[in-house]
Amino acid sequence: MKRSVLKFGGSSVSDFTKIKNIAEMLKDRIENGEQLIVVVSAMGKTTDQLMENVAALTAEPKQQELALLLTTGEQQTVSYLSMILNDIGVNAKAMTGYQAGIKTVGHHLKSRIAEINPETFDKAFETNDVLVVAGFQGINEEFELTTLGRGGSDTTAVALAAANQTPCEIYTDVDGVYATDPRVYKDAKRLSIVSYEEMMEMSALGAGVLETRSVELANNYNIPLYLGRTLSNVKGTWIMSQTEILEKKAVTGVALDTHMMHVTISYPLSDNQLLTALFTELEEGQVNVDMISQIVNLDGLQLSFSIKDTDLTQIKGILEKLSESYKALDYNLNDEYVKISLIGSGMRDMSGVASKAFISLINAGIPFYQTTTSEISISYVIDAKNGERAVEELYQAFDI
Amino acid sequence: MKRSVLKFGGSSVSDFTKIKNIAEMLKDRIENGEQLIVVVSAMGKTTDQLMENVAALTAEPKQQELALLLTTGEQQTVSYLSMILNDIGVNAKAMTGYQAGIKTVGHHLKSRIAEINPETFDKAFETNDVLVVAGFQGINEEFELTTLGRGGSDTTAVALAAANQTPCEIYTDVDGVYATDPRVYKDAKRLSIVSYEEMMEMSALGAGVLETRSVELANNYNIPLYLGRTLSNVKGTWIMSQTEILEKKAVTGVALDTHMMHVTISYPLSDNQLLTALFTELEEGQVNVDMISQIVNLDGLQLSFSIKDTDLTQIKGILEKLSESYKALDYNLNDEYVKISLIGSGMRDMSGVASKAFISLINAGIPFYQTTTSEISISYVIDAKNGERAVEELYQAFDI
Repeated sequence: MKRSVLKFGGSSVSDFTKIKNIAEMLKDRIENGEQLIVVVSAMGKTTDQLMENVAALTAEPKQQELALLLTTGEQQTVSYLSMILNDIGVNAKAMTGYQAGIKTVGHHLKSRIAEINPETFDKAFETNDVLVVAGFQGINEEFELTTLGRGGSDTTAVALAAANQTPCEIYTDVDGVYATDPRVYKDAKRLSIVSYEEMMEMSALGAGVLETRSVELANNYNIPLYLGRTLSNVKGTWIMSQTEILEKKAVTGVALDTHMMHVTISYPLSDNQLLTALFTELEEGQVNVDMISQIVNLDGLQLSFSIKDTDLTQIKGILEKLSESYKALDYNLNDEYVKISLIGSGMRDMSGVASKAFISLINAGIPFYQTTTSEISISYVIDAKNGERAVEELYQAFDI
Repeated sequence: MKRSVLKFGGSSVSDFTKIKNIAEMLKDRIENGEQLIVVVSAMGKTTDQLMENVAALTAEPKQQELALLLTTGEQQTVSYLSMILNDIGVNAKAMTGYQAGIKTVGHHLKSRIAEINPETFDKAFETNDVLVVAGFQGINEEFELTTLGRGGSDTTAVALAAANQTPCEIYTDVDGVYATDPRVYKDAKRLSIVSYEEMMEMSALGAGVLETRSVELANNYNIPLYLGRTLSNVKGTWIMSQTEILEKKAVTGVALDTHMMHVTISYPLSDNQLLTALFTELEEGQVNVDMISQIVNLDGLQLSFSIKDTDLTQIKGILEKLSESYKALDYNLNDEYVKISLIGSGMRDMSGVASKAFISLINAGIPFYQTTTSEISISYVIDAKNGERAVEELYQAFDI
């Protein structure tokens, strides 16, 4: 029997009417002979509300307790959806993350999935047609509840699809993947198909429809991933293996990342211990460093790197701590830059993309300060004020 | 190190200010050298609110899903209380029922505790001074979440006390155990000490400060049980072994049970199959039958029994089902009776209690329809309208 994983985010299940409509849709699919695993997030603003309660209680909540609290949101959604399904005659079973066998490792609030046991599902499908699983959560080796961090429910869905060797459909409040953000460039095209690696580059470069980790997981297990609007007839985007996509373009998309923060550190000596201490702290604090450039000369060392602006509190703490041991350390945080990126797996085979982009930006009078390339992308750090104009220039230059 | 179990009900943790005050009290006790296991219920009306949501979704929620939903209430309270404790410098750890190792058997919403592993606690106390455990819940052999039914959090607390061999303090919104309900008889005395068996009789007979099952559990494991008002200086009631109570009175308390329902069944034949079918259904539906009387004569059989009025829906379903197989079955449900009971472990040694009570009721012109006795109690079924007056008469007759 065909099995699929479907995932519905918080805004898709924000009230009981929406949940009921989803239940009816699931019933139709069951009646067409499918077995469904349905991953849901907490209803609407539930998680935000819980976080607000916590903020009023303590400035530094214990992370284990915070994870325990937050997981109740999804636990409620799975209960409700499964009750409704049973009420309309569908055999459904609700499961928390740990009941679905999702074992995690790492930090309580940013855990990674270590293991899923597919037998759990085969057994549950013996008496059920729909298994409703709480997204975003798992259980660690200490038998403590954990959450998967940002975009965690997508990761849950993809991991379950991998364990069951099924496609994964992610339903959200956008129509699919666009060549660039339609809020930035109104004529942006919706892509009907995109490769894993292009999608990963887009996500990593700030086109945040899907978190990189879930696409990466889909890629690793070769799980076809669909992204589309909940209960909509508009066809969304399939994300799949490169080899299954016939026509390749040099550039598939343009991403603009406005959520970056630029950190510059100066120290009068070239001190490897300082750098080791810095990167150890960054790793322990799970702060992801993006572009890095370092200058070492007679004036000492100067290091620049970019991070997500959501890591602001973390990075401040790290830099303050380092300043205690390294009194001469000077640092600066700046959020007046953005990063614009061109993505396309065709770049591998077609030359001249970098220079064409370079010329476009120069002609448009848009200065850039740092540039990095990967096999299928090129990124430029530019002034925040030039962001939207740069998207338009490059979109047109490459006829996306 | 001295270890205690404390339990706070829903009204004691209905807002964050109350939870913070409880946290401060727990901190004081920790600083006096105790290790505490704290069992909490869902905050205030949380459970009612969840039930309301469900009622709007489906008339017959799947019980497994309902249990899964309801357990989120306590999971939230333990998270909040533990966060606050950590915030004020107390090493605390929050645990759901299954994390505390509470394994259950039976019906999802009326489960019984099968097993608790005390090692869980020894290990958690190595790094914590307070363990905050979600009341009312556990996990069954199918790895499904369950709730313990009415008064479930009290049962959790006593079971944890039994597993840890510690006393159990139950904090609520009453000052302790009274000789009779102070709302019915305003001069009712508060008891400073009462035996397990008297307390069980009182609970079973409708003086509902504590559910019978939790007192029974305390009795089985000889766990001293305290009942008092949350954060109050008023001394509550200790419930303990009979042998530790020196002065015994013939009658310790009067209980009035207004939540009873009288069921009468008539059938033209004396049919054992019918009775077997009835009692099997009652057992499967977990409907507890209290007083039973049966008349078999040439007109067939007539059976009367009383049950709790909360089992109304259940009993209706059972009787309707039976009527399908036994067309001549006639039944009647009546809630115009109440049960008044005298309780006292001194009854064993002192005679004349029944006749003295009998005379008091006769003199007061209060007719009674059915009477039952146990070793330490006597109960009379009387008209509901005479309930309060009967309490007053008996209270005074026995100089309680």
